[in-house]
Amino acid sequence: MVIVMAPDATSDNIDSIVDLVASAGGAAYVTRGVSRTIIGLVGDVQRFGSLDLSALPGVADVLRISTPYKLVSRENTTKRSVVRVAGVPIGGDHMTVIAGPCAVETPEQTLEAALMARRAGASLLRGGAYKPRTSPYAFQGLGEAGLKILADVRDETGLPIVTEVVDAGDVELVASYADMLQIGTRNMQNFALLQAAGEAGRPVLLKRGMSATIEEWLMAAEYIAQRGNLDIVLCERGIRTFEKATRNTLDISAVPVAQALSHLPVVVDPSHSGGKRDLVLPLSRAAVAVGADGIIVDVHPSPETALCDGPQALTGSDLDELAHLAATLPTLVGRTLTPAPQPAVLGV
Amino acid sequence: MVIVMAPDATSDNIDSIVDLVASAGGAAYVTRGVSRTIIGLVGDVQRFGSLDLSALPGVADVLRISTPYKLVSRENTTKRSVVRVAGVPIGGDHMTVIAGPCAVETPEQTLEAALMARRAGASLLRGGAYKPRTSPYAFQGLGEAGLKILADVRDETGLPIVTEVVDAGDVELVASYADMLQIGTRNMQNFALLQAAGEAGRPVLLKRGMSATIEEWLMAAEYIAQRGNLDIVLCERGIRTFEKATRNTLDISAVPVAQALSHLPVVVDPSHSGGKRDLVLPLSRAAVAVGADGIIVDVHPSPETALCDGPQALTGSDLDELAHLAATLPTLVGRTLTPAPQPAVLGV
Amino acid sequence: MVIVMAPDATSDNIDSIVDLVASAGGAAYVTRGVSRTIIGLVGDVQRFGSLDLSALPGVADVLRISTPYKLVSRENTTKRSVVRVAGVPIGGDHMTVIAGPCAVETPEQTLEAALMARRAGASLLRGGAYKPRTSPYAFQGLGEAGLKILADVRDETGLPIVTEVVDAGDVELVASYADMLQIGTRNMQNFALLQAAGEAGRPVLLKRGMSATIEEWLMAAEYIAQRGNLDIVLCERGIRTFEKATRNTLDISAVPVAQALSHLPVVVDPSHSGGKRDLVLPLSRAAVAVGADGIIVDVHPSPETALCDGPQALTGSDLDELAHLAATLPTLVGRTLTPAPQPAVLGV
Amino acid sequence: MVIVMAPDATSDNIDSIVDLVASAGGAAYVTRGVSRTIIGLVGDVQRFGSLDLSALPGVADVLRISTPYKLVSRENTTKRSVVRVAGVPIGGDHMTVIAGPCAVETPEQTLEAALMARRAGASLLRGGAYKPRTSPYAFQGLGEAGLKILADVRDETGLPIVTEVVDAGDVELVASYADMLQIGTRNMQNFALLQAAGEAGRPVLLKRGMSATIEEWLMAAEYIAQRGNLDIVLCERGIRTFEKATRNTLDISAVPVAQALSHLPVVVDPSHSGGKRDLVLPLSRAAVAVGADGIIVDVHPSPETALCDGPQALTGSDLDELAHLAATLPTLVGRTLTPAPQPAVLGV
Repeated sequence: MVIVMAPDATSDNIDSIVDLVASAGGAAYVTRGVSRTIIGLVGDVQRFGSLDLSALPGVADVLRISTPYKLVSRENTTKRSVVRVAGVPIGGDHMTVIAGPCAVETPEQTLEAALMARRAGASLLRGGAYKPRTSPYAFQGLGEAGLKILADVRDETGLPIVTEVVDAGDVELVASYADMLQIGTRNMQNFALLQAAGEAGRPVLLKRGMSATIEEWLMAAEYIAQRGNLDIVLCERGIRTFEKATRNTLDISAVPVAQALSHLPVVVDPSHSGGKRDLVLPLSRAAVAVGADGIIVDVHPSPETALCDGPQALTGSDLDELAHLAATLPTLVGRTLTPAPQPAVLGV
Repeated sequence: MVIVMAPDATSDNIDSIVDLVASAGGAAYVTRGVSRTIIGLVGDVQRFGSLDLSALPGVADVLRISTPYKLVSRENTTKRSVVRVAGVPIGGDHMTVIAGPCAVETPEQTLEAALMARRAGASLLRGGAYKPRTSPYAFQGLGEAGLKILADVRDETGLPIVTEVVDAGDVELVASYADMLQIGTRNMQNFALLQAAGEAGRPVLLKRGMSATIEEWLMAAEYIAQRGNLDIVLCERGIRTFEKATRNTLDISAVPVAQALSHLPVVVDPSHSGGKRDLVLPLSRAAVAVGADGIIVDVHPSPETALCDGPQALTGSDLDELAHLAATLPTLVGRTLTPAPQPAVLGV
Repeated sequence: MVIVMAPDATSDNIDSIVDLVASAGGAAYVTRGVSRTIIGLVGDVQRFGSLDLSALPGVADVLRISTPYKLVSRENTTKRSVVRVAGVPIGGDHMTVIAGPCAVETPEQTLEAALMARRAGASLLRGGAYKPRTSPYAFQGLGEAGLKILADVRDETGLPIVTEVVDAGDVELVASYADMLQIGTRNMQNFALLQAAGEAGRPVLLKRGMSATIEEWLMAAEYIAQRGNLDIVLCERGIRTFEKATRNTLDISAVPVAQALSHLPVVVDPSHSGGKRDLVLPLSRAAVAVGADGIIVDVHPSPETALCDGPQALTGSDLDELAHLAATLPTLVGRTLTPAPQPAVLGV
Repeated sequence: MVIVMAPDATSDNIDSIVDLVASAGGAAYVTRGVSRTIIGLVGDVQRFGSLDLSALPGVADVLRISTPYKLVSRENTTKRSVVRVAGVPIGGDHMTVIAGPCAVETPEQTLEAALMARRAGASLLRGGAYKPRTSPYAFQGLGEAGLKILADVRDETGLPIVTEVVDAGDVELVASYADMLQIGTRNMQNFALLQAAGEAGRPVLLKRGMSATIEEWLMAAEYIAQRGNLDIVLCERGIRTFEKATRNTLDISAVPVAQALSHLPVVVDPSHSGGKRDLVLPLSRAAVAVGADGIIVDVHPSPETALCDGPQALTGSDLDELAHLAATLPTLVGRTLTPAPQPAVLGV
C-alpha cells in the first residue's frame, strides 16, 4: 500500500501517519520527491484497510498494490487449472463446447436441443430451469420440473448438465440434479448465493457481471473458493457499454487478461454477448482464437417459438459450421476439442 | 409494437407476418414507405413477445412501444405516491432525510450516529447489519445482533430504521426488526429477493443497480409491486461509467426522469455516488434542488476507524451544514423538510 | 512515480531499475514489503515517462503520482479564477447565465432569441454559426453570415457573444467577431484547434468531451493555457453512458471535482446533457445548487421549427422560471447573478 | 419514421400531426392500438427531421427507421469493397497486415521498424509524423521531417505508407507524401478534417472514435464519401468502458456488425485496444478469426526507449509469431494474406 501526500502536506502530517501505521503493527517508509512525498506501507494490508488513511490530513491518495483475491490468483497457483464436470474437462489443453437451449420448455424440445448440441460439438448440455428475467411478466422457467427434464435428457444423451441457480435457498435442490451450477450475470455479486455454491459440492460456472470489472469478477470467484470449492470456471458474456448495436459488448480481451491473473479456466458466451444469431459463429471463432477454454452457445430446435432469447439461438446448418470450427480452430492455439461422453446405455 | 421491414423484404414476407399476428389473436396494419415498409401490431403485446418476430425473413427491426411495467408506471397512476415508514412520509411535498452509519458496529457507535443523524435533519435512521462486500475478506456485518442494536437505538431516539437485506431467506427476520427494507445496488436484479420483499409487509427502499437503466430499475420495482407491495421508494446512488474521479457517477437526471415515468418517490444517495466526504454536501444540494423526495446520507462518529466506507461519512460541523440546507433549500422547490418523530418516552 | 514490482521480481530486476533511473538523472528508493517491493522515483517525471518502465523485467505496474497539468491546476494557483468576457464575469462569487439559440438561422430569430435570453437572466448570448453535426446531411450553420448576425444582435442587445469554432483555420475569423470562443465536445481533443484558440486573444469556453475523463478535460485546457491564454471556462455538458433515457448523462459531480483540481470556472449545459425541455429547469437548479459558476441554456422563439436541437430549447413561460431560479438560488450558495450589460445606445 | 403517441393523446393531437406532415409534403398513416396510437410517416425523412415532431402535444416518441448514411451503406452497395493503397488491396478475400512504429523518431528507427513490419507479414507501413497527444508536454511528432523519413523508407522497403493527419490545414501536405491518410480516434468527428480528407485523392483509414457508436462511425465515413472519396477503410481500435484492466475495450463484435451495415473493409488495431504487448497476439488472432479485413500493429526496434506507446509495441520473436498467424489463420475464414510489394530496385 502506498500513500501519496498532497503538495502542501506538513512534516507533522507525515509523522502522524508513520505513527498510526506503527500502532497498527506495520512499518512506513517515507520517500520525499520534488513536489510530493510518498509513504510505502509494509505489513498487514487488510489491517491498514480499516484505517481511514485517505481521510487523514495531508493525504492526497492511497494506492493498493497487492491483488485482493488470493485463492483464485495466479500469484500463488501458477499452473492453470482443469475443472472436471462429471468427467468432462474444461481448461488446460482442452477446448470445450457447452450448448443447449436458453430455457427448458418441454422434454421434447430439450432432447432435441441436446442432440443439436452434440451435433455442434458440445460435450456438456446447458439449459435453464430457473430463469432470471428482467420483466416479472416474462417466462420464469419450469423450476424443479425443468431439472427433471434435464436429468432425463442427460440419461438419454450422456451429456452432463449445466444449469443456473438464482437463489441461495435453491442451491441444494439444483445441485441434486445438476453436474455444474451456473451463476448468472445478475447474481455475480449475490454473495449469499456465491457462498452457498461454494458449499454445494459441484463445479460452478460463474458469469461475469454485466458491469463488473475483471477484478470484481475474480473477487466473486474468491467468495466461492473461500468456502472450499476451487472448481470454478469463469464465463465472459459481454459487458454493458454505450454501444447498442449489440445486446452487450463482448470483452474479448478479458479472456487473456483473466487467464493471466487467475489459474481458473475462462469460457466465452457468444450468444448472450452479441444477442444475434448472425454474430454467434464469428464471435465463437474469435473466442477460440483468442485462447478461451471453451464456449457456451444457445441452440434451439425452433427459435421462432422459443420462450427465451430465440433471436440468438443457433439452429440448422449453423450447427455444422460450429462443429467444423470447434474441430479445426483449437489446434491452431494448441488445444483439442473435448469429445462428448457417451450415454451409459451405449457403454453396455 | 412496430415491425420495420428490410428494404429487400418481399410481399410474401409481409403477408406471412400479417397471418402470424392474426393467428396469435392480433391485428397487423401495413404502411408502405418510400424505402421501407412498417407493420403496426395491435393486440396483446405479451403474446407477440413470445413470437420470434425479429427472426422472420424480411424483418429488419422490432420496436416495442408500451412501457413494460404497469403497477409502478405513471401511465395508470398519475398522482405521485407518498410512502410512510412507521408514520414518516417520503414523497409528495415532503423532503425526507435518512441518515446513519454505513454499518452497525457497536451499540455506542450506532446510538451516537443516530444522534448525529437527528442533528443533521434526519427523520429515519439507516444502518447496515448485513453488508454485501466486494471482498470476502471485508467486514460482512453483525447480522441479527446488528438488527437488535438498531431496534434499541430506535427505542431511544424515536427514529424508524431502514436496513438492508441481502438474501430472500433473511427477509422475514429482517422485517421483524426493520421499519423499511433496503435492497442494495448489487441485488437490484436478485428477483427472489425482490419477490420476498414484496410479501414482507414493509416498505422497500430499492437502490438502482450500478449499471441498470432506468427502465430496468422500474421493472425491478414492478417485481415487488406485483406481490402486492406498492410502498416502494426508488434510490439513485450513482451509476458506473468510465470516469474514475468519483466512486460512481451520480445520475442526477434520473430523478426527474424516474418521477415522470413512475409515481414512486425517488431519493438520492450522495454518499455512495461520490464516495468522498467533500462531495456529500454539494451533491445533497443538487439532489434537493433537482426535486428529489429525499436524501440518504452516511454519518459516523469517527470515520477514520469505520469498518465500512469511512471516507464518505459526514461528521462534525458538516452535519450542521446538512441540517441547514435540509431546512432551507426544500422550500425553493415547494417542499418541506420531514420532521423527526419523537421517542415514545418523550411523548409520555 | 512509483514502480510496483511483481512478486517474483529478482534483486537483479530491482538493481537494473535503480541504475536506469539514475542514468536518467533521477533517484530510486526501494521499499521491500511482505509480498511486493515498490520503488519510489524522485526527479523529472517527464523524463521517466519516456523510459518504458512498465516493460522492464519484474515490473508489475507503474503509478503516476503528480497531476499532468500544471497551468490550470489548483496546486499552483489556489485562488479560483474569474474570467471576463467583454467585461462580463464568470467565476468567483458570480453565477452567470449564457443563453441563446443552438444555431443562428435568421437575424429575426437571433434577435428574438437574444431578447428571450435577457428575459431568462442571461448576460451573455450563445449562438452557433459553425455547427458540427453527426450527419453530413444536417444543417451545418450559416458560417460568416451567422457571425455577422450575431454581431448585429450584440449591438442591439448589449449581450457579448459566445460562438463555436470547429477548425483551427477558422479561429482568426471567428475571433474577429466573437467575444468568447466555444470549443465543442467533439473537438475537445482537436489539439490544433486548442492551440489556435490559445493564441486568439479571446476567452475560451471548453466543453468536456463526451467520453473524456476530468483529467483529460484539464489536459485539453492545458493545451490552451500553454499558448498563453488562461481565460478558460470549463463546461460540463453530459457524458456518454449506457443510459438512453437522456441524451447524455449530466455528470453533476464533475463540477465540484473540477473546481477542486483546477482554478478555472466551471459551468453546466443543462440543455445538451438532458436533451429534453422538461429536464432543463430541474438540471439548471441542480447546477446552481451544486456550485457551478454558470449555466448555458438553449432558447428558441419557435422550437418546433428550429434547425437544430429544438426539442431541448426553452421558450415561453419557462424563461421566467429560469429567471426566477437564477435570481434566487445563487444566494443560497454565496453567489450573485451576473447582471446583463446594457446596449451602448442605452448608455448614451 | 414512426410517431408513438402518448396514452392520453387526443384525436386533435393526432389530426394536427397528420396535417403538419401533409403540409411538409409527406403522408401519415394512423394505427390505433389498445393503449397507444402510432403514426407512420411516408415521404422525405430529411424534411421531417426539421419539424420538431417530438415536441408536439400528445407525442411520446419519434422513431427513425432508415439508416442515416447512404453512400457507405450496404443497403445500396451490397458487394463488399476492396480499397487499394498504392496497389496493395484491403478487403474482399484479402487479409492485410499494416505495421510500423507508433511514431517516426529517426531514419534508422523507422527503417528498422519497417523491416520488422515486413518480417511480421505486413504489406503496408504505418508510422506517425503528427501525433495527437493527451498531454501538451508529450512528444508531438516530427511533422514534415517525419513524412520525409517515411517516404525514404518506402523507397527502400517498397512498403506504401499510412500516416495520420490531425488538422484540415495539413491534409494537402500529408497527402503529398502518404499513400493512405489515417484519421485518428480523437478526430473521428473533426468534420473539417473528414471533408478535407474526402478531397485529398488518397484512401483513408478512419479509426472509430473511442466512444462513438457504430452508427456515428459510419456517419463519419459518410462525410468523407460525400466529398467523392469512397476509398475508406474502417478501423476498430477499442472503445472506452468502465474496465481499466485494458487501455480500451476491443469491440470485436463491431467487425461483423460494421461489415453487415457497410460495404467498406474493416480492420482491427490490437495494439491500441489492449495497450499491452502481451495482448497483441491473442487479439490479432481474434481479429483475423472474426473476419476482419486486416490488422494494424505497432512494432518498434527498442520499445523501452520509444517516444510513444512503447509498452504495446511488438518486437523480437513476437514478430515471427505474428507472421505465422497471419500466414495460417486467414485460410480458415476464406482469406489470403496480402503479400508485401517489392521495392522498386528489386524489380529492376
